[in-house]
Amino acid sequence: MSRWFPVDGTPGGVTGDVVRRFVATLEARDWDGWSALLHEDVVYELPQTRERVRGRDTLLRFNREFPGDWHLRAKRVVADGEHGVLWLAARVGDSAEGDAVAFLTVVDGLVTEVVEFWPAGYEPPPGREHLTERW
Amino acid sequence: MSRWFPVDGTPGGVTGDVVRRFVATLEARDWDGWSALLHEDVVYELPQTRERVRGRDTLLRFNREFPGDWHLRAKRVVADGEHGVLWLAARVGDSAEGDAVAFLTVVDGLVTEVVEFWPAGYEPPPGREHLTERW
Repeated sequence: MSRWFPVDGTPGGVTGDVVRRFVATLEARDWDGWSALLHEDVVYELPQTRERVRGRDTLLRFNREFPGDWHLRAKRVVADGEHGVLWLAARVGDSAEGDAVAFLTVVDGLVTEVVEFWPAGYEPPPGREHLTERW
Repeated sequence: MSRWFPVDGTPGGVTGDVVRRFVATLEARDWDGWSALLHEDVVYELPQTRERVRGRDTLLRFNREFPGDWHLRAKRVVADGEHGVLWLAARVGDSAEGDAVAFLTVVDGLVTEVVEFWPAGYEPPPGREHLTERW
């Protein structure tokens, strides 16, 4: 059961807007605009590496120092109350785009939590070729 | 901009309900209940393996034949209009829980598309230990 109506001027709508600005300012290296979206005590987690970054200043540094000519594009934004989800297309330089997913929590217009996944490709297990097609 | 209000009786609310029932019926092996949520022409995609399954009957078989004592638990459901997101905790038998993410599209109460990610663990690249903690 949703608590909010995700329309303009309400918390759900704010979450969607914050999530869209989160990726747009990041892609633009608009560091002032990006960090203005973050709560001072934001927590960023990467469950795949079991890494955690605490606090806006440290997370800003983490992103500013992130190596490579990385680019992010929002493929889908889903927002519901305090929860926003970003399905991202990510690439480094001229590499092919890969998928990433970020779950954001937005409270009073500020990002308090980000949990991010970077799923890598792998070969399908044998035994289901009769049910699947490949692309 | 969201098109729907995600409250009971409206499309957004229906999407959240369908997404929750999707995982509950799957975990219960309630195959009739699960397939009743699927559009006849549902498309299921695994971008990591570039596999695609087309159609309710084939997708039902894909899941019924999936090996192992697998278990799924919804950690977060985010729904907005026709889009639903499932953050899942998945385990096989007594294994530790791992994360999975499914993006669903729900039209007129039926799941028409599922795009699923199964992010695996990896070692963090060196050079950011000064900014991160591990768990």
